[in-house]
Amino acid sequence: MPATDQLNIVPFISVENMMDLVLTTGTETFLRELAGYVEEDFRRWESFDKVARVASHSHDGVIELMPTSDGTLYSFKYVNGHPKNTRNGRQTVTAFGVLSDVDSGYPLLLSEMTILTALRTAATSAVVAKHLAPKGARTMAVIGNGAQSEFQALAFKSLLGIDRLRLYDIDAAATERCRRNLQGLGLTIEACRSTEEAVEGAQIVTTVTADKQNATILTDNMIGSGVHINAVGGDCPGKTELHRDILLRSSIFVEYPPQTRVEGEIQQLPQDYPVTEIWRVINGEIAGRESASQITLFDSVGFATEDFSALRYVHDKLRNSDCFQKLDLLADPDEPRDLFGMLLRREALTIA
Amino acid sequence: MPATDQLNIVPFISVENMMDLVLTTGTETFLRELAGYVEEDFRRWESFDKVARVASHSHDGVIELMPTSDGTLYSFKYVNGHPKNTRNGRQTVTAFGVLSDVDSGYPLLLSEMTILTALRTAATSAVVAKHLAPKGARTMAVIGNGAQSEFQALAFKSLLGIDRLRLYDIDAAATERCRRNLQGLGLTIEACRSTEEAVEGAQIVTTVTADKQNATILTDNMIGSGVHINAVGGDCPGKTELHRDILLRSSIFVEYPPQTRVEGEIQQLPQDYPVTEIWRVINGEIAGRESASQITLFDSVGFATEDFSALRYVHDKLRNSDCFQKLDLLADPDEPRDLFGMLLRREALTIA
Repeated sequence: MPATDQLNIVPFISVENMMDLVLTTGTETFLRELAGYVEEDFRRWESFDKVARVASHSHDGVIELMPTSDGTLYSFKYVNGHPKNTRNGRQTVTAFGVLSDVDSGYPLLLSEMTILTALRTAATSAVVAKHLAPKGARTMAVIGNGAQSEFQALAFKSLLGIDRLRLYDIDAAATERCRRNLQGLGLTIEACRSTEEAVEGAQIVTTVTADKQNATILTDNMIGSGVHINAVGGDCPGKTELHRDILLRSSIFVEYPPQTRVEGEIQQLPQDYPVTEIWRVINGEIAGRESASQITLFDSVGFATEDFSALRYVHDKLRNSDCFQKLDLLADPDEPRDLFGMLLRREALTIA
Repeated sequence: MPATDQLNIVPFISVENMMDLVLTTGTETFLRELAGYVEEDFRRWESFDKVARVASHSHDGVIELMPTSDGTLYSFKYVNGHPKNTRNGRQTVTAFGVLSDVDSGYPLLLSEMTILTALRTAATSAVVAKHLAPKGARTMAVIGNGAQSEFQALAFKSLLGIDRLRLYDIDAAATERCRRNLQGLGLTIEACRSTEEAVEGAQIVTTVTADKQNATILTDNMIGSGVHINAVGGDCPGKTELHRDILLRSSIFVEYPPQTRVEGEIQQLPQDYPVTEIWRVINGEIAGRESASQITLFDSVGFATEDFSALRYVHDKLRNSDCFQKLDLLADPDEPRDLFGMLLRREALTIA
């Protein structure tokens, strides 16, 4: 735990701190270590308090709070989703989060989570793919080459040994940037001119597009037998990426069904359509991929426990790192019941 | 709005900043101005998205998130309630909050809210009492002389002209500290040896005790006709302060019924027991106090819109104040879709 005996202080990881924490760790090492925390928490899924995220929808987007707790630690993430934001230089998705001690209710950590969410989403995708992707998969198609694409690529390289990428984005400049960003990192990269071209020969297809609307990034004819689909971009009501027919041919794995049925690709299916909770696969209770011809689909929307894992991980890392600042966030009067006295003493101090 | 063109920066009001903001404004002026915002937002109650707070209960306490939005601004507060915390020098209640822009989802302000919550609770109590307390009330009993008591006293002095206080706490040292803290602020203060003694001659009775259990701070015989009861301390399931018989003799006013029926004094009554929503009184739709003999009861539990008002108020105040720090909370890559590139550029910078 970060060394502070001051009750008023909460460690804060700024965006710059987070970048330094990632870079001093190494991005791929960070993704692998983080994946370990994600996997560990999926295995003890039943020990978590789970609620669907608390969403505040507006015309152009949504602001969400995602709380969870394992009885010892509590976390929540604040995250927005505003696709039009990029028009004025803002991020579509920004986030920050807090990790707290359940016994005292005191925050242990405040952290930026825009970068951390991209990392945890990629780590989660890779953890899940370890159980669902065809054995020996080396080629991944990435449809949508925006903010999350490189993180997905590196997580799959680091955890599954993916070494060939086939990229496609409706914006060729995004593909080119993604390709350039990943240069020299041990990946053979092909920039493709269509989704059809990108999925050719790929054992894993990752979709990570950003439009807030029902889109059909993948149609049924593009997906051959044996493929694992890592569907990341469809993550709110009215926002999907896959044609319904693909869903009907796939074995579908989800994080938390009550949330995924509202936000995921399966919002296109009846509410009782059978899906498998991925934690049951990760803890060995249920088989993942069962045949070479099976199409597996991870209908990922992102769940609070993954943010919990990410915050728990970076909080542990702060033990051996100075990548944080000390934030005077909590009132700490000399006597807990004397909040007003603290104000009076500050007044005396300021006048003196 | 605080002057910053940097998209990564969120203004942060630390505990020290908040004390300075209160002290440079003057505590009573701050309470009066804040009460104006609270009143204004109660008047437009129907424009708010309202949900009961999202609570995570544990053995020794609770951690809650309290979000709301008026369609233009969004706020949430994180607040814990851990009565045993004072044993090791911690606060029973600590809090912080965020105000955001609904159009972009970007946070506009992060603020400590331990002090601010005490102020907004007191301001709300006083706003409500303006409509419910007997005309010309000058004497208030304060039962429970802990962290919130002085703020309550000053709010009622500032907004209602209360100038006589009758204090009682099971801990005489708390009463003495409260008396001392309020010295020289224009209040005549009587330290009492019992609740019975404290309520004698008081037109307003404020209960603000902290035990997490059903207690009976006030019994029926203590409350004479015409009194206004400002019941602040009972604010979670299993935590009440008033004997049920008092409730049955009173006209009961609440913030948000779905929340108050779970958390307030009225958890002792049937779920359909008639209560009046205080916003209807504040906006003039329904009469408040209707006779000199009526017992009025504000069953206060604290609602998200009050925190919204408080954050909106301090955010406005930052226009003319430097009582804030700049927090590097949001990722701001040169190109919104190039989050990974930001990391690469940081790496290049660090190596160089």
